[in-house]
Amino acid sequence: MNYRMIGRINAFLLILEAFFMIPSVIYCFYDHDRWVGYSFLIGMGVCLAVAGLLLILTRHAPAGFYAKDGFVCVGFGWILICLFGCTPYWLSGQLPQFIDALFETVSGFTTTGSSVVPAVESLSRGVNYWRCFTNWLGGMGVLVFLLALAPIGGENGGYTMHLLRAESPGPNVGKLVPKMRRTAAILYLIYILLTFLDFLFLVVGEMSAYEALCTSFATAGTGGFGVKNDSLAGFSSYSQNVCTVFMMLFGVNFSCYYLILIRKVKNVLKDEEFRLYWGIAIGSVGAITLNLMLNKFYQGSFWDTLRHSSFQVSSIMTTTGFATTDFDAWPTFSKVILVCLMVIGACAGSTGGGIKCARLLLILKGLRRNIRQLLHPNRVEVVHINGNAVDEGILANTNAYLAAYAAILVVSFILVSIDHITVTTSLTAVLACMNNIGPGLEQVGPSANYAGLSILSKSVLILDMLAGRLEIFPILILFSRGTWKRY
Amino acid sequence: MNYRMIGRINAFLLILEAFFMIPSVIYCFYDHDRWVGYSFLIGMGVCLAVAGLLLILTRHAPAGFYAKDGFVCVGFGWILICLFGCTPYWLSGQLPQFIDALFETVSGFTTTGSSVVPAVESLSRGVNYWRCFTNWLGGMGVLVFLLALAPIGGENGGYTMHLLRAESPGPNVGKLVPKMRRTAAILYLIYILLTFLDFLFLVVGEMSAYEALCTSFATAGTGGFGVKNDSLAGFSSYSQNVCTVFMMLFGVNFSCYYLILIRKVKNVLKDEEFRLYWGIAIGSVGAITLNLMLNKFYQGSFWDTLRHSSFQVSSIMTTTGFATTDFDAWPTFSKVILVCLMVIGACAGSTGGGIKCARLLLILKGLRRNIRQLLHPNRVEVVHINGNAVDEGILANTNAYLAAYAAILVVSFILVSIDHITVTTSLTAVLACMNNIGPGLEQVGPSANYAGLSILSKSVLILDMLAGRLEIFPILILFSRGTWKRY
Repeated sequence: MNYRMIGRINAFLLILEAFFMIPSVIYCFYDHDRWVGYSFLIGMGVCLAVAGLLLILTRHAPAGFYAKDGFVCVGFGWILICLFGCTPYWLSGQLPQFIDALFETVSGFTTTGSSVVPAVESLSRGVNYWRCFTNWLGGMGVLVFLLALAPIGGENGGYTMHLLRAESPGPNVGKLVPKMRRTAAILYLIYILLTFLDFLFLVVGEMSAYEALCTSFATAGTGGFGVKNDSLAGFSSYSQNVCTVFMMLFGVNFSCYYLILIRKVKNVLKDEEFRLYWGIAIGSVGAITLNLMLNKFYQGSFWDTLRHSSFQVSSIMTTTGFATTDFDAWPTFSKVILVCLMVIGACAGSTGGGIKCARLLLILKGLRRNIRQLLHPNRVEVVHINGNAVDEGILANTNAYLAAYAAILVVSFILVSIDHITVTTSLTAVLACMNNIGPGLEQVGPSANYAGLSILSKSVLILDMLAGRLEIFPILILFSRGTWKRY
Repeated sequence: MNYRMIGRINAFLLILEAFFMIPSVIYCFYDHDRWVGYSFLIGMGVCLAVAGLLLILTRHAPAGFYAKDGFVCVGFGWILICLFGCTPYWLSGQLPQFIDALFETVSGFTTTGSSVVPAVESLSRGVNYWRCFTNWLGGMGVLVFLLALAPIGGENGGYTMHLLRAESPGPNVGKLVPKMRRTAAILYLIYILLTFLDFLFLVVGEMSAYEALCTSFATAGTGGFGVKNDSLAGFSSYSQNVCTVFMMLFGVNFSCYYLILIRKVKNVLKDEEFRLYWGIAIGSVGAITLNLMLNKFYQGSFWDTLRHSSFQVSSIMTTTGFATTDFDAWPTFSKVILVCLMVIGACAGSTGGGIKCARLLLILKGLRRNIRQLLHPNRVEVVHINGNAVDEGILANTNAYLAAYAAILVVSFILVSIDHITVTTSLTAVLACMNNIGPGLEQVGPSANYAGLSILSKSVLILDMLAGRLEIFPILILFSRGTWKRY
């Protein structure tokens, strides 16, 4: 294991984190929230001090950085930025319990958006800005940002590839351009551009610049932290519809936008994952709208029903987690569709979570292949996606992912149920955290929050959120004995 | 496809079914339930008439019987015996709705034990005998019985192998002895012997011969149909404990009993699935007992709590579904453990359902292999069970099984939720039927039943029960286009 290189990269992560706290400090002092501002300054100081120490200790990092180092670096780095990112919440007393501060930070960086804060409006603006910004940064990935910025470890070795692979979501992380660093830069440029567009559309409506900025950060990262107690329910239909559209857009594989930029729109429209994603979304909106209309929700107004159902489908499927209505009061059929969307999630290579449409496609195609092989044992069948044969290693990894996903789900489900909550609460809390969504049903529904859970449940859910965002393996590898064995 | 051979085997199945209705007829006429008795006679007549017709039509069946034929034959045969097996319920008016009669029969043969009958004590003894007997016959498999009985298709070809593979549960159905037919016979002899032992232990207690017979049939098949409205709650602790032990015994892989008979007890004790099965059971009993004691259930009496928790764990894990207490009233933690046990199920090669401990073992070991390969991409790793390398084909099939299981679960969950039921009801109804357990939670809990569900839900659950018992592929293949295509 290349411990020095891992330490060096983590030091740069902390410097980056300290740098990103500056806007919060400005907000705090502008609003005369002095003590909160000092907390951020202390947080920055701690980040920089630890980073400096790490840089001194790891001056002569050797070359050689393998897949294993990539996973460990990403897993460790994320835990580190969450631990240091929660200091302002905690020191300022806005979240007096350390576990709550950590939960909120992990929920932010992993773009989950589950909150332990009953009334976010009572928080300082600096704190709310930081909450929403962690959504944005975590969405595209903090290491991807670092890589896009500078060649931290020199140009040697494939470390960029291993880091990007370990941090980016999806079964098969590819390059857009031959150089991995340029790929990272292109992804972030598209991301910034789309976020800016979202901000413009929102600020044109009734939102203040601060509200629009925070909301566009939370939308872009598909995080779902809000600045209002009632999430987005209090805003106009216009703002809600803008969010519906942008949430869906941020759930699309970003390589699609690159293809559009280089004028290969046809390839995007033919992309099987892209089609599946929109197909599921439109189908779900249709089914839920029908179900709500038949049950006479929203006074039977078709447009109101459509607005709420499309917003909620977009919010849950992209794993953002905003709410405009208490969908826990919806009929069971609609709720069950939402629960299924929780698991499916958005596209690979987007900022959304869940098991991803690409994996769903691989699983279903793999299943079809297997049935065919049961019928004709001697024929060799290959799985194709977009006309290309899929590598068997990717299929095996997808199956392993599914198995690990199910195993973590079951263990978390059992542990969280020790709390005094219902079965549905326990299940949807785990699903909402593992898939980085935010609200679940019943006691963790859109009109409730996670504050009432025990420390054990919160700790389990923190690990679930990290495992969900990093797609399990970096976290699993961090806790696996084989990683630390010397051969 | 060898349609003639498939037809021929199905004809024999129907003859067998007619034959097995004789005891019910005797019970009916002995109890002066004439009309019910006539219904059974009509049912027998229909079975024999259709069988005769089929035999005439398929006189010159060609040789050549492949894996595909095996799946189709098993899938089709099970649907057939369920359709014909429900005629007595329906004709006698004891279950006036056809869908209810079919549901009860499918629930019987698949050893699910979900009932649509609110008060089984009001049913005729002949009907109750038939309900419990379908549990017994479905447990070990009706085709396995047929194969053990006679060489129906002549000794040619590997048709016995393909049929046994398609009907028997588990990822890797093996032979005990070189001849497949003798394997089937040995399995049924062990099965009859164990059932008889169970009957003896029960009849020694306070049960009547009729009650003991029905209960031992339902226990042996891990079906869980009862002859009392309150399942086993009204019987003595002795009878309940006998059932606890025998349910667990019928959840063990039957090849273990063969190994014991040929004095290879050591191999049984070292068997990894055997250990996992007992480990999970004991761990669950411990956790639930502790949880119930801390919550002061059963007046805090340790032995009462242990009796109820071990009975319920044994009943759910082996997918029997008997109840001695309303476990829906238990704390969430205990309920969640039961829900997880629902999915895991019993051992491969037993009469129990679920995904089976053997598959759990394969999934977890496959996952560990995959993590190791992520860490060391160039090393070749093989999965071992009991010291033997596992064929990659079996691992691939297990993954496909898991994917199909999840897909069917999700679709059924959505369809059943159209009914006016809670999310937990919808989820546990599907889990209880797919894993052939019986009772779920809330509106389908141990003190409720499935009568209130809509025809759509009942139809979906009927397919789930069949898919669960036959381990998905025979049913999936029956509905897959590729099966019926000519090449």
